[in-house]
Amino acid sequence: MYRERIRLNSLHDKVMSAAEAAALIKDGMTVGMSGFTRAGEAKAVPQALAERAKLSPLKITLMTGASLGNDLDKQLTEAGVLARRMPFQVDSTLRKAINAGEVMFIDQHLSETVEQLRNKQLPLPDIAVIEAVAITEQGHIVPTTSVGNSASFAIFAKQVIVEINMAHNPNLEGLHDIYIPTYRPTRTPIPLVKVDDRIGSTAIPIPPEKIVAIVITNKPDSPSTVSEPDSETDGIAFHLINFLKQEVAEGRMSNNLGPLQAGIGNIANAVMCGLIDSPFENLTMYSEVLQDSTFDLIDAGKMSFASGSSITLSSRRNADVFGNLERYKDKLVLRPQEISNHPEIVRRLGIIGINTALEFDIYGNVNSTHVCGTRMMNGIGGSGDFARNAHLAIFVTKSIAKAGAISSVVPMVSHVDHTEHDVDILVTEQGLADLRGLAPRERARVIIDNCVHPDFREALNDYFTKACAIGGHTPHILREALSWHINLEETGKMLP
Amino acid sequence: MYRERIRLNSLHDKVMSAAEAAALIKDGMTVGMSGFTRAGEAKAVPQALAERAKLSPLKITLMTGASLGNDLDKQLTEAGVLARRMPFQVDSTLRKAINAGEVMFIDQHLSETVEQLRNKQLPLPDIAVIEAVAITEQGHIVPTTSVGNSASFAIFAKQVIVEINMAHNPNLEGLHDIYIPTYRPTRTPIPLVKVDDRIGSTAIPIPPEKIVAIVITNKPDSPSTVSEPDSETDGIAFHLINFLKQEVAEGRMSNNLGPLQAGIGNIANAVMCGLIDSPFENLTMYSEVLQDSTFDLIDAGKMSFASGSSITLSSRRNADVFGNLERYKDKLVLRPQEISNHPEIVRRLGIIGINTALEFDIYGNVNSTHVCGTRMMNGIGGSGDFARNAHLAIFVTKSIAKAGAISSVVPMVSHVDHTEHDVDILVTEQGLADLRGLAPRERARVIIDNCVHPDFREALNDYFTKACAIGGHTPHILREALSWHINLEETGKMLP
Repeated sequence: MYRERIRLNSLHDKVMSAAEAAALIKDGMTVGMSGFTRAGEAKAVPQALAERAKLSPLKITLMTGASLGNDLDKQLTEAGVLARRMPFQVDSTLRKAINAGEVMFIDQHLSETVEQLRNKQLPLPDIAVIEAVAITEQGHIVPTTSVGNSASFAIFAKQVIVEINMAHNPNLEGLHDIYIPTYRPTRTPIPLVKVDDRIGSTAIPIPPEKIVAIVITNKPDSPSTVSEPDSETDGIAFHLINFLKQEVAEGRMSNNLGPLQAGIGNIANAVMCGLIDSPFENLTMYSEVLQDSTFDLIDAGKMSFASGSSITLSSRRNADVFGNLERYKDKLVLRPQEISNHPEIVRRLGIIGINTALEFDIYGNVNSTHVCGTRMMNGIGGSGDFARNAHLAIFVTKSIAKAGAISSVVPMVSHVDHTEHDVDILVTEQGLADLRGLAPRERARVIIDNCVHPDFREALNDYFTKACAIGGHTPHILREALSWHINLEETGKMLP
Repeated sequence: MYRERIRLNSLHDKVMSAAEAAALIKDGMTVGMSGFTRAGEAKAVPQALAERAKLSPLKITLMTGASLGNDLDKQLTEAGVLARRMPFQVDSTLRKAINAGEVMFIDQHLSETVEQLRNKQLPLPDIAVIEAVAITEQGHIVPTTSVGNSASFAIFAKQVIVEINMAHNPNLEGLHDIYIPTYRPTRTPIPLVKVDDRIGSTAIPIPPEKIVAIVITNKPDSPSTVSEPDSETDGIAFHLINFLKQEVAEGRMSNNLGPLQAGIGNIANAVMCGLIDSPFENLTMYSEVLQDSTFDLIDAGKMSFASGSSITLSSRRNADVFGNLERYKDKLVLRPQEISNHPEIVRRLGIIGINTALEFDIYGNVNSTHVCGTRMMNGIGGSGDFARNAHLAIFVTKSIAKAGAISSVVPMVSHVDHTEHDVDILVTEQGLADLRGLAPRERARVIIDNCVHPDFREALNDYFTKACAIGGHTPHILREALSWHINLEETGKMLP
């Protein structure tokens, strides 16, 4: 019964329908919603808002943790609700609207959104909509499968709508660790020094009178869309795990490697799965999202603790993990994304960050976001938070795409998200390039020799040789630097 | 008398000539030398090494804090000594050799070099050469006008050569604060929470038996090359200070602004000078290099404390500051560059970072380093350390260069050092663009309207309009994106 989940009795009369709650959201408002990597998003109120907007148009600025599930970004886009959207998304309908210039998308480092709110550099949310498993006796909000930006949204918003989702196991309570940095100029160090440290509270502390509506829902998170490893992702995992073994052998790492971060997606998931059969022990994660592979590693006795900001599982894994949460609960913590991705912590812990590149160039600059320099895919997400300060900043991708029309390694990337200064290791199924301590001309040699698909190696070698003849610290032929992307746009493939 | 400066008597017999000390450096060695922004570099040993190499060739990997004075990079380059050089330089002879591919230059975030050494990701220095004002009774080294990477170089090197420079005021002792982060996985927070906190020791703690040679010198640092403000730099300062006033008026900052960081160079120096006549009070700096303007602000009663990693002054200011150091000493501290530039501290303190751009594009990506995407100027320095985590990441540049042949605002930068995600404010003498919370298309509008020189505004407007018609989150016309740079290379100017 939902009344047991609202443990502050005075809030019971705030229960209302999703449509009634959505009516609190007015045209022009800034709204902060829960949801991170399709986990723990508020489900009923945004849907009701989209329904209402079909009859009575309105526009809002929508801030979330990261991507939403249950096609909510699609519904909100189709209903014309989104004027502005930040800091991340993965929805194809919204993506089209962003690329058409219809929705203003502010693509941000995931650790930074609430810092900018705290400093009044972004408009504060008028209203927050947060999914919860419960409201405590104090009126504090217990999140569900993600923390994301929920805590700061609830703290900064004037009004808070809570969705109590009966589909989530109530024993998620206790999993979260809510820590909010203090205001400058009296901010103190974040007191987290180990992956499993708990430094905050298990619920979001807000004055209960800010809770203006409670909506009861019963709808699961969307399953993750991660597919099974294939021969290329297995190849990437193979090269990367061999490299990590060598790092251990050479004394640069202990056999537990240090805390791992893995971006969302097939390749990073495959790499993590590859660790099951590795010689490493007592692995830990300090990551944004905990995926199937995290629990596979825990089940295999390989992983002793995982810290994230969300749990996003496949249909296969979902019932098993959340139905048997007690089995995992002492090995897990979910934190605000400001803390899961915080540069201070990433640098302190010495994280191994594994993220996916859309393309990279022969000098090691990485494009994570823009197809042919213009069209947004998803957003930079947390990749910059981790790569800049990681012990090892690793980017992975298959060497070719679209059946060989596209090389993921190009003369010059068409958009830069991670500069040569922030990229240590590049891996494709062809091999691994270790760029540490190398100058650009040396990087090019290692990248071309190790990462490029054979179909493109000669052309890149030619480019590099000709560019070196012209000269420069980072040799380029400006007339040809983007020619592969121009070919792709004009002919459908990068090389004639 | 130099013997008074070597307070551990057992080290007196280590005094030798620069040539004898330089003989300890062997072909193929990795050498870590003091020196940061042309301050506090070892002077005699590298010169002796260059002399020796003319007779008996040798190659080394040279690591410093940042740039060296006294033409040392020039002499070492001309003598063919430099095989590899990191993490920064400003010498025109070395620059030519780097761009010719003769010296492998590893351009690094200045906070990261010693982190990579600590993690064995770069070869440890075989030998360190450190300028000092004194050696303590414990055999610890008291640096001179910079700390840079000297402490970690001395700690990591097997052997240490100390240059005692009699030209430096011995009462520099006490100015330094040497703190070294502990090794992972037991690293703890850096306990610095205020600009004026002292968290370490006043000398570099090494076992005295590592000191294998002491060379006595008497040669000043090179004066800074910063020129006086001109009408353009005054214009930039005017726009920026107006903006800061508005930030205070709107309650986003207090009247002391928060800690300031200013990159080296004329424009940043002019902006800092502009603060003398501003209404702000009790200013502080948490920066890399303290320049003339720092002391002008202290003298004017505007600045209460300045933390840096070096002091680099003009001839005009040098004798006055170092001859009257007692006047400033309680308002200054010099730290290792790992700490002056540390992401953890930059984010905690909420620094206002002011750095110079070579060029930026209509979407706010900044090129700090590469002329036409290929030829290295100096290096990224600390600009990335600060910009990524600053409260405000500000980049400044004059809107045109080379008498109007070059626009500093271009359709697409030819090299990216700071991505759109890391750039808040852009300023030229034309005006200021506040990019916070804006999507790329909105950024372009603000940048073109405010920062571009009138001679280039129409052409950029045309590019942007045509690109928007094609579409994309970050609209570009790939065939034209680098055409301004191509024109420049081929015709000497960006537009026909």
